[in-house]
Amino acid sequence: MALTRLLGIEAIAAIVADVGIDSLLDELIERMETALRGYDPALIPTVDRAGFYYTEPALGLIEWMPAMAAGRWVSVKVVGYHPTNPMRRGIPSVLATISLYDTTTGELLVLTEGTVLTALRTGAASAVASKILAVPHPEVVGIIGCGAQAVAQLHALSRVRTFDRVLAFDTNLEVASSLARRLPIDGVRVDVLAANQLETLMATSDVIITSTSVDPGAGPVLPVAETRPWLHINAIGADFPGKTEIPRQILEKAMVCPDCTSQCLAEGECQVLSPSSLGPDLVQLVKGADRYAAHRSSLTLFDSTGWALEDLVVAEMALEHAERLGVGCAIDINAMPRDPYDPYQIVLPDRAMGRRSR
Amino acid sequence: MALTRLLGIEAIAAIVADVGIDSLLDELIERMETALRGYDPALIPTVDRAGFYYTEPALGLIEWMPAMAAGRWVSVKVVGYHPTNPMRRGIPSVLATISLYDTTTGELLVLTEGTVLTALRTGAASAVASKILAVPHPEVVGIIGCGAQAVAQLHALSRVRTFDRVLAFDTNLEVASSLARRLPIDGVRVDVLAANQLETLMATSDVIITSTSVDPGAGPVLPVAETRPWLHINAIGADFPGKTEIPRQILEKAMVCPDCTSQCLAEGECQVLSPSSLGPDLVQLVKGADRYAAHRSSLTLFDSTGWALEDLVVAEMALEHAERLGVGCAIDINAMPRDPYDPYQIVLPDRAMGRRSR
Repeated sequence: MALTRLLGIEAIAAIVADVGIDSLLDELIERMETALRGYDPALIPTVDRAGFYYTEPALGLIEWMPAMAAGRWVSVKVVGYHPTNPMRRGIPSVLATISLYDTTTGELLVLTEGTVLTALRTGAASAVASKILAVPHPEVVGIIGCGAQAVAQLHALSRVRTFDRVLAFDTNLEVASSLARRLPIDGVRVDVLAANQLETLMATSDVIITSTSVDPGAGPVLPVAETRPWLHINAIGADFPGKTEIPRQILEKAMVCPDCTSQCLAEGECQVLSPSSLGPDLVQLVKGADRYAAHRSSLTLFDSTGWALEDLVVAEMALEHAERLGVGCAIDINAMPRDPYDPYQIVLPDRAMGRRSR
Repeated sequence: MALTRLLGIEAIAAIVADVGIDSLLDELIERMETALRGYDPALIPTVDRAGFYYTEPALGLIEWMPAMAAGRWVSVKVVGYHPTNPMRRGIPSVLATISLYDTTTGELLVLTEGTVLTALRTGAASAVASKILAVPHPEVVGIIGCGAQAVAQLHALSRVRTFDRVLAFDTNLEVASSLARRLPIDGVRVDVLAANQLETLMATSDVIITSTSVDPGAGPVLPVAETRPWLHINAIGADFPGKTEIPRQILEKAMVCPDCTSQCLAEGECQVLSPSSLGPDLVQLVKGADRYAAHRSSLTLFDSTGWALEDLVVAEMALEHAERLGVGCAIDINAMPRDPYDPYQIVLPDRAMGRRSR
């Protein structure tokens, strides 16, 4: 009871090895849908992301994203976004951990790696939205920003929609060129586009994903151009005041579905929109999936800032598989003195024994 | 670089064994004073505590307390307060962990137990206030609420003021009776009082500490009674909307010094006061210590809700000693793929290798 279960990256790898990455993502998409369909904020309250932002030594932020499964546990994801990580240090721009705390006692029950889990859950959320809003048989998927999130976005989309062609653009040509090698999807051709071909991407894509590290104030990353009438966009990158990827003209034409309305108004694409102009949020979308499927024939956009509920869902999935497989390890972090009124007992065992023997 | 240092309770015990509990507390009090004296919110921004509160299955809360040492790391303490823990489960009511995240990369650098550290830092903060505001030679210290925090409060006070008599009251007589055994202070006599002796405690104490688990709305825990003119109170328990320990009449007569003004107005003793009636906060108190020492002859109160800065200070101290002693262990929690753009690389090693060999 006093031990904490640690799920490091090797535990997550063991889960993937056992379940398979496709099946794991399928399971996560299903869990996400179930959680959203039954969502009641009284049972699973979440708190909008907050954090520290800084520009020295480079642009970065560290944020906390809390959610509670009432009567069970509180999850706190802490996520860092440091867009210079890949180029300067060869490590991912988004790094995260998720912790689960017992609401009966306050103990830290689980600490899990959250970097892979964040990519998976962000992909799964987009897949849930795409299942409802994207055309049933897309042919071309455009992607702007081909880093780590792009891999999970395309992979998750491939679990709910079959497509055979990806048009890929990244300001870093090497990153765009290596996307095909990183995608765990069979039979998909990836064509790398140049910056002057973005209008082609706009004109021919059935689904577009934006997952860039564009600087705040430097967006949008999509041109204002003609699109297919039924285009669905998963806008992933906007997660910071001033950071947006989508031109206002497209936002104003589309039905815009935020993952978490208050958060999207603060730091998502919705920043430039008025609350009254927004479409259904992700919960409403899933609860009214049949109704909203009518929008497959018109322009739609999923504004994904990343929601604490999603972190809770993916952490619970990882924990269940870890328990089933017996992976991860136990760490002794919580101070559990024999006398709950004596904080010094464990750190001063001699004193405690000495005093007891009197 | 990708490894996280874990300081479990045994690492903290090793530090205490090496440094000694008295010297460690002395060092912490000094570090706290130094941090407060040089405090600049631009260099160490903190965020007011927020959390989830619930009443089922029993009253409890889990809160997060973030602070940033700019250019270095973000600390996030997550603390649970479950007042039924000791009676129902034999574990402390306050349990905590503190995590340090690197502001250059976002990595989790350190995870440390925070239960003992919380008791120590709360004690140290009271000691800092008491050094300035309490009479130089108190004889009698009254304490209401004799649980885990009481031990560290009295111990910390004993490092900055010599006293030889404690008047102790707790609604649980067993807890009051065991206080003497738990105190690591030589030559102090602890007299346990009955509820009808609280006016005696009020009338004869030079310093009073309140550190109870009184329910929100059920306070105050001190009677309205005559006190010594120079009484200094360290009010520790109020940390929850509606939870207060001190009668309004005393608050209105005293110079009330909040540890963190905004937080104290929300959930400390200051809840019942107007902002304009407050005295200097802890930072102002330390920066103007010479001036405020004049208040030793009149009624003063330190409103301690617990401030994220204090968690940062104690975590840094623990980390430095752990590094010096080589205690704690390394855990592999951060996903660090060789390719920063491939979140699946570590969890799908076969695929990565297979694709590479094409």
